[in-house]
Amino acid sequence: MRELELLSHIYRSNAALPVGVSIPPGDDMGAVKVGGGAVLVTVDQVADGVHFDLSTDPLEKIGRKAMTRNLSDAAAMAARPVAAVAAACLPKDFGEDRAKTLFDVMHATADRFNCPLIGGDISMWDQRLILTVTVFAEPDGIDPVLRSGAKVGDAVYVTGKLGGSLITLEDPPDYTHHLDFTPRIDIARKLATSIATRPHAMIDLSDGLALDLARICEQSGVCAELDSDKVPISTAADITAKRSGQPAWQHALGDGEDYELCFTAQPGMIPDQIDGVPVTPVGRIVEATTGPRVSVRLADGTFADTAGLGWEHVG
Amino acid sequence: MRELELLSHIYRSNAALPVGVSIPPGDDMGAVKVGGGAVLVTVDQVADGVHFDLSTDPLEKIGRKAMTRNLSDAAAMAARPVAAVAAACLPKDFGEDRAKTLFDVMHATADRFNCPLIGGDISMWDQRLILTVTVFAEPDGIDPVLRSGAKVGDAVYVTGKLGGSLITLEDPPDYTHHLDFTPRIDIARKLATSIATRPHAMIDLSDGLALDLARICEQSGVCAELDSDKVPISTAADITAKRSGQPAWQHALGDGEDYELCFTAQPGMIPDQIDGVPVTPVGRIVEATTGPRVSVRLADGTFADTAGLGWEHVG
Repeated sequence: MRELELLSHIYRSNAALPVGVSIPPGDDMGAVKVGGGAVLVTVDQVADGVHFDLSTDPLEKIGRKAMTRNLSDAAAMAARPVAAVAAACLPKDFGEDRAKTLFDVMHATADRFNCPLIGGDISMWDQRLILTVTVFAEPDGIDPVLRSGAKVGDAVYVTGKLGGSLITLEDPPDYTHHLDFTPRIDIARKLATSIATRPHAMIDLSDGLALDLARICEQSGVCAELDSDKVPISTAADITAKRSGQPAWQHALGDGEDYELCFTAQPGMIPDQIDGVPVTPVGRIVEATTGPRVSVRLADGTFADTAGLGWEHVG
Repeated sequence: MRELELLSHIYRSNAALPVGVSIPPGDDMGAVKVGGGAVLVTVDQVADGVHFDLSTDPLEKIGRKAMTRNLSDAAAMAARPVAAVAAACLPKDFGEDRAKTLFDVMHATADRFNCPLIGGDISMWDQRLILTVTVFAEPDGIDPVLRSGAKVGDAVYVTGKLGGSLITLEDPPDYTHHLDFTPRIDIARKLATSIATRPHAMIDLSDGLALDLARICEQSGVCAELDSDKVPISTAADITAKRSGQPAWQHALGDGEDYELCFTAQPGMIPDQIDGVPVTPVGRIVEATTGPRVSVRLADGTFADTAGLGWEHVG
């Protein structure tokens, strides 16, 4: 059973959306008209054993990630977060002190991004910890950037450096990217506020550049080519590559949980850094073919498919 | 560790709420200003082994409850539901067919109450099923009814009949109230639209009349007296009382999961039924004392405390 098939099932059953739904399911956030404006909304859960490890990860980072994962979805729409609600199902032996620590950090993280926690639901059970956060956001003067706007001839950009997000670094000390990342809200809004730099399509990188860019391509009806030697490689991806024996670019494309932005835009207009964060052109949007949605051009000039785990060469 | 203590901890840390939060945490829904209007929001989770039993309860009813539990919170504010998002953490062996059934019924239930499901997050893990639904709503011309407006001299009302919500009835066949209830959205909005009948304070009954009315009293700075012989007793409460040997009114006050409305209003103005659902005066709001928040007057004229499980007599 694949998550995508399930999601597709939900989306299909939404074919006839009621009046008032301005962005249907399938983007980083849905949107609906309320009062005089539009509200964007996203929900994400983090579960012990899936998205974090309660036995080793600090509570402070777990609570932080529960919030930032959603805030990254708001960034992907270039939306301004407005408020959050959180649901927690705690193991019965969790203890009050740890619960308070967890909620304190969720609350502080929400405040840090001007997205106050305004409600919650707490249950206890004999299973593992799970936190579910819903963030809502508003356009606040900037039309939301969708996944569906990529155009042939666009350049493909990513913020930051990619790969190895799950390993812990010694420098900076105890840094584990998937628990410590900064949602790129400000960068997204700076890009989207000017016609010259406004992304045509954007997504946040949760499942790896290859798969997430394929989602943009799917919804835009185009294909993409990445250049393996242009993808910005994180220190963690380099370390991971040495351990795995695979090329670092494969980790940068496939590891997931980068929570950086991937967007397509008119070439030549995007600055090479914003707020000190590198913004790197990594490829281009091309016409849809019957081949892979996203292929990668290797240093020797051949192309590899990025679909699946096999990194199958196709030309 | 008590849920209430945890929630209090969250609410205290929200003492300095940012501009834009129009209803702070602690009511049935929070609210925040977006665009030109206010958006109300609530989140609730239903977990296997806590809120339903996956081994015996039909999937159709589980998915329904995940939605209706939140819609009942919207009813408690007299708000109009606008949209929902859902997160599911599925056991790894759950299977695609059952997942589709679950999402189909959540989707159909959302549509049935004009509250389209516009997004979601699906994960899989080796633990039990948990569904988390966030509903947002708008006032749509009716100021939200809070918990904090109860006045001395108000009558206390409940919709429907209370108690025994967890048992399955033979008549109607296979009816289990906590899985089959109808959120009282229309009734709440009909009451709140007229000055004469507008509730001063309202809550939906999730933890039992005694505890939920105490929440209204706490937030309104008042106390309440219930009349044991006026509380409407459900068939299920009668059956449960025969099994337990306790008076049926104790089950009506304490069993929980009724998802009926409890509200306070000017006496003498409320019709005895709305849309075929009984609306019953069950007591009155009195001045705050050092005694119990909610006491119950028994048939012999003595009063009992409703706090705790002991049903401790206090006078």
